[in-house]
Amino acid sequence: MSIAQDMPMPRALDRSIEADLRRVIDTKTKPPGSLGRLETLALQMGLIQRTLKPRIERPAMIVFAADHGIAAEGVSAYPQEVTAQMVANFLAGGAAINALSRSVGMTLEVVDAGVAAPIPLEGYERLSLGAGTRNFAREPAMTRELALEAIARGAARVRHHASLGTNVIGFGEMGIANTSAAACLMSRLCDVSIDECVGRGTGLDDRGVRHKRDVLAKALAMHQKADDAIDTLATFGGFEIAMMTGAYLAAAKANMTILVDGFIATSALVVASTIAPQVREYCVFAHASNEAGHRRMLAHFDAMPLLQLDLRLGEGTGAALALPILRAAVAFLDEMASFESAGVSDKQS
Amino acid sequence: MSIAQDMPMPRALDRSIEADLRRVIDTKTKPPGSLGRLETLALQMGLIQRTLKPRIERPAMIVFAADHGIAAEGVSAYPQEVTAQMVANFLAGGAAINALSRSVGMTLEVVDAGVAAPIPLEGYERLSLGAGTRNFAREPAMTRELALEAIARGAARVRHHASLGTNVIGFGEMGIANTSAAACLMSRLCDVSIDECVGRGTGLDDRGVRHKRDVLAKALAMHQKADDAIDTLATFGGFEIAMMTGAYLAAAKANMTILVDGFIATSALVVASTIAPQVREYCVFAHASNEAGHRRMLAHFDAMPLLQLDLRLGEGTGAALALPILRAAVAFLDEMASFESAGVSDKQS
Repeated sequence: MSIAQDMPMPRALDRSIEADLRRVIDTKTKPPGSLGRLETLALQMGLIQRTLKPRIERPAMIVFAADHGIAAEGVSAYPQEVTAQMVANFLAGGAAINALSRSVGMTLEVVDAGVAAPIPLEGYERLSLGAGTRNFAREPAMTRELALEAIARGAARVRHHASLGTNVIGFGEMGIANTSAAACLMSRLCDVSIDECVGRGTGLDDRGVRHKRDVLAKALAMHQKADDAIDTLATFGGFEIAMMTGAYLAAAKANMTILVDGFIATSALVVASTIAPQVREYCVFAHASNEAGHRRMLAHFDAMPLLQLDLRLGEGTGAALALPILRAAVAFLDEMASFESAGVSDKQS
Repeated sequence: MSIAQDMPMPRALDRSIEADLRRVIDTKTKPPGSLGRLETLALQMGLIQRTLKPRIERPAMIVFAADHGIAAEGVSAYPQEVTAQMVANFLAGGAAINALSRSVGMTLEVVDAGVAAPIPLEGYERLSLGAGTRNFAREPAMTRELALEAIARGAARVRHHASLGTNVIGFGEMGIANTSAAACLMSRLCDVSIDECVGRGTGLDDRGVRHKRDVLAKALAMHQKADDAIDTLATFGGFEIAMMTGAYLAAAKANMTILVDGFIATSALVVASTIAPQVREYCVFAHASNEAGHRRMLAHFDAMPLLQLDLRLGEGTGAALALPILRAAVAFLDEMASFESAGVSDKQS
């Protein structure tokens, strides 16, 4: 696999303080293991931050938006102009991710990764790589060079947030037809039949789902298997998915805890972890969506998401909702007394 | 069923604004239904508060603590003195529920409902009905009069919080051996075999679970089926469970949204909803614990809890963790734009 020289390559987790972390967790005034997944999260965040007292600093959500040439095949329930309209909605503060990131206390950033229509408002990061990708039913969505440039741009945004102190980050997306891109990436990189990867997106009916599956099956048959994850990304991906790929790699390299959102966000993680498997150790899978392929993709990562709230929106909404659980994990580790310090009798022997 | 005159009796939800609420939810800038359980929560809170703009005001957590005579039968992994020690830990701020309620922004109150040993610190509500209940392996845990008094005291605490503006409330508990009380209440009131109701509590091994099941099966056989829920509560319950029963009824009567914690908290809800089934409409089931009987009890309520984080601690920890999800539900309903106001195209027709 050939990888650009400046691709951010995260390290495997340093586990040297794991035993110490486990001891601190186990001597808190509670039966061992009784805080369940909060204990696992506290351990993971301690390992990522290499400390017995992990913190959540300046949690941030980056929403990457882009358009997809495949939308021309009628694979989405919504017209392509909705991408730009929804970006405007993000900038005006009226979308779900605005309400949710405010609610949980996350800084929200919106990135134009390649939206087709003009964006009528200010206040976003202008990283566009073009007016949407090409239609991968006919030709590769982008060149390898553009895919690498997108990865670099996504990584740079994360480094920017790292420089401001962010150590917990989530990635959201907006892009009409991007479940089609995600489904093809999943099918190719996880070696799963396209039938298992295709769902309703944001609202297709049965006929729509059949059409989408046919379009994607033909597209997969047309493009032969690529040599590496970057070429696969270039063939089927979107600019927002490619930027998220770089963002995952850079976030893990910066020792951030990464909140993984739904189907599309997870497809970008499939690309990133094909490039660098150790990125997975920095990830908290936030939400199991109902998109058909998402659960299959989570199984690929052997992941048990924190939440199952029947969300099927994207935008980073699932990732945002998991932040308070991370806060609780950090809080119990930091603030709870030990059996000894509290004078509480341990289990009867 | 005979019920004391001053038992708080909640009303059934007024559904007159349901259609309006659904319309507001469905015209937000998202595919219909795509916020999943957040939409259901927003609807429920709107109905409870009788407004299109539900709010979360002064969210509170009351932890009721008490001891249980049945502890003398060796049904818990921990000695009885741990109840008072843990109450002291709550008051010193070092327990899990302290860290978690701080983390999510809930006011925490600790109630001595009937702890056996002296509590060495100040700062709790002194509502004790005695130094623990009697051992229901030999005699009823308390008299009917004490059960009614406990219900009244629990209800009074909730009215106090209502007077301070609280409109979202959770109830936690602490009491060595209280999973035994909860298991018997469940077995009797849900008409389920005791085998389905008994779990490891906070840490029994296989032998301990067998012993616990034998003790409880004998106790159930000894006490004949009572005429009503109050007498059943008096026979097997604890002072904390009885106070929680009154707290549920009063909270629903005060139009509060109620966060339902784990196994023991749910057993008190079984009692409350046997008295007044409409209390269930005010409840949000926060967490599905791993305690064997809890999932069975949730099925009794046809409930799908918001979280499944493998907690098995009680104290209200599961309920506290669900509050941020309620905040998110209220936030999207209040803050999101509609398709019309945001100028976003709706689905292709």
